[in-house]
Amino acid sequence: MSLCWQRIAEASQKNNSRLCVGLDVDPLRLPDAVKAGGDPIYSFNCAVIEATLDLVCCYKPNAAFYEAQGAEGLDALVRTIRFIGGRVPVILDVKRGDIGNTAARYAQAAFEWFGADAVTVSPYMGLDSVDPFMEFPGKGIFVLCLTSNRGSADFQLLPEENPLYEQVAAKVRQWDEGKECLGLVVGATHPERIARLREIAGDLPFLLPGIGTQGGSLEAVSAAEIPGEKPGVIVNASRSVIYAGEGKDFAVNIREAAAELRDRIGGPASDI
Amino acid sequence: MSLCWQRIAEASQKNNSRLCVGLDVDPLRLPDAVKAGGDPIYSFNCAVIEATLDLVCCYKPNAAFYEAQGAEGLDALVRTIRFIGGRVPVILDVKRGDIGNTAARYAQAAFEWFGADAVTVSPYMGLDSVDPFMEFPGKGIFVLCLTSNRGSADFQLLPEENPLYEQVAAKVRQWDEGKECLGLVVGATHPERIARLREIAGDLPFLLPGIGTQGGSLEAVSAAEIPGEKPGVIVNASRSVIYAGEGKDFAVNIREAAAELRDRIGGPASDI
Repeated sequence: MSLCWQRIAEASQKNNSRLCVGLDVDPLRLPDAVKAGGDPIYSFNCAVIEATLDLVCCYKPNAAFYEAQGAEGLDALVRTIRFIGGRVPVILDVKRGDIGNTAARYAQAAFEWFGADAVTVSPYMGLDSVDPFMEFPGKGIFVLCLTSNRGSADFQLLPEENPLYEQVAAKVRQWDEGKECLGLVVGATHPERIARLREIAGDLPFLLPGIGTQGGSLEAVSAAEIPGEKPGVIVNASRSVIYAGEGKDFAVNIREAAAELRDRIGGPASDI
Repeated sequence: MSLCWQRIAEASQKNNSRLCVGLDVDPLRLPDAVKAGGDPIYSFNCAVIEATLDLVCCYKPNAAFYEAQGAEGLDALVRTIRFIGGRVPVILDVKRGDIGNTAARYAQAAFEWFGADAVTVSPYMGLDSVDPFMEFPGKGIFVLCLTSNRGSADFQLLPEENPLYEQVAAKVRQWDEGKECLGLVVGATHPERIARLREIAGDLPFLLPGIGTQGGSLEAVSAAEIPGEKPGVIVNASRSVIYAGEGKDFAVNIREAAAELRDRIGGPASDI
């Protein structure tokens, strides 16, 4: 089992949590106190991390939010991951996918420049677009499978019999044999599909976004859980946690929102 | 028709070229003379652009190669696009795909920070992952359809009847109605599938990678061509052009390789 899965499982046990907090910072939505200070993106992330570090099993910054802020944004991302400093693992949500020669460069950026422990990737271009990420020892790679957005119906749910997302799950399970470094991104907005998907996917870890602002359901969590040491389900929430507070005490509100969600999800031991 | 398509068509006419040069710079493969100087990635790109500007219809830097070099690499990418300065359009090959709220950030990065005229995106997450890119007026968006790599067989070619890549082509054509800003990425390594794909895709511009190092065929070009003002086919070559020379005269070798390939492809007027 990849070191990354082991570390997520450990943090999960220690903090009795399957919660991943998504660090998707929109500079316009920052509390006034943070906006007024210098280095707002980084300062906000540090505040979120300090308020939630003992409540989560990992963090997941989405690279898009940092790229949109240019060089300064990406620098804040690098420093944010450094601030976490390995205390819990970091999933860098990049959803990359390119031919092997090029995917190797994305892997280098994610794991070496940004210092991520895990990434998200797209399956559209097949195995040779995922392989270069698997060559970095100890890392975790979540492949998009059934996403939380409306557009998931455009291709992933087709055809009705053996839809694309089930094909992806089956193939990723094959690719993972003897490696144990792959997982799946499975939107919590499709709770009725999770039990069947768990059968197809074996014990691949599921990263569940879509809880909170996107309206996903926690029913998905118990259907996705697996016995054993590997992390079965990691539930991501971004906006509903990090924008929980606006005033001076925003960090307190963030902590409360994270704790409340963690408890609703339940710890890793709760249903094994 | 999007301003970007118009500008590619104009450059294509002016330079009698359907060639796009891929600016995928690997610092290890640079000519010694460039390696020895300062700012090697940017300097090399400037040399490639000066050697080929009157031979191409556009350029296509792949973001992965710059991301892999960290902040310095991305800065070289920004400056490279600025150096081209609108003389021909720039397709930023990023293959992004995320939920709407997040895709909007990638669009902002590509069009505002980097200053690209067009991008590549992944269709896996459906319309709402592509939409935010379409909201930038005048831009071009190439959606991955049938890619040039081996892994294209893993999902894109399935099922045999109405395979995923044909579904993508049909849907992208629908999404493009009344907008005329979408195109498709279609690997030149699948020449036997292009004629049928052209029927499904209507007059969507095709970006054809896979010529050169990847072994793709120019047969694909005439099968993909369309009459009219819209660019029908843009043929990308990266490694086979930019690494054509190693010595002091590397820029001369690059120019020769680009000119030779442009002539083999034929101009836009040649088969209309």
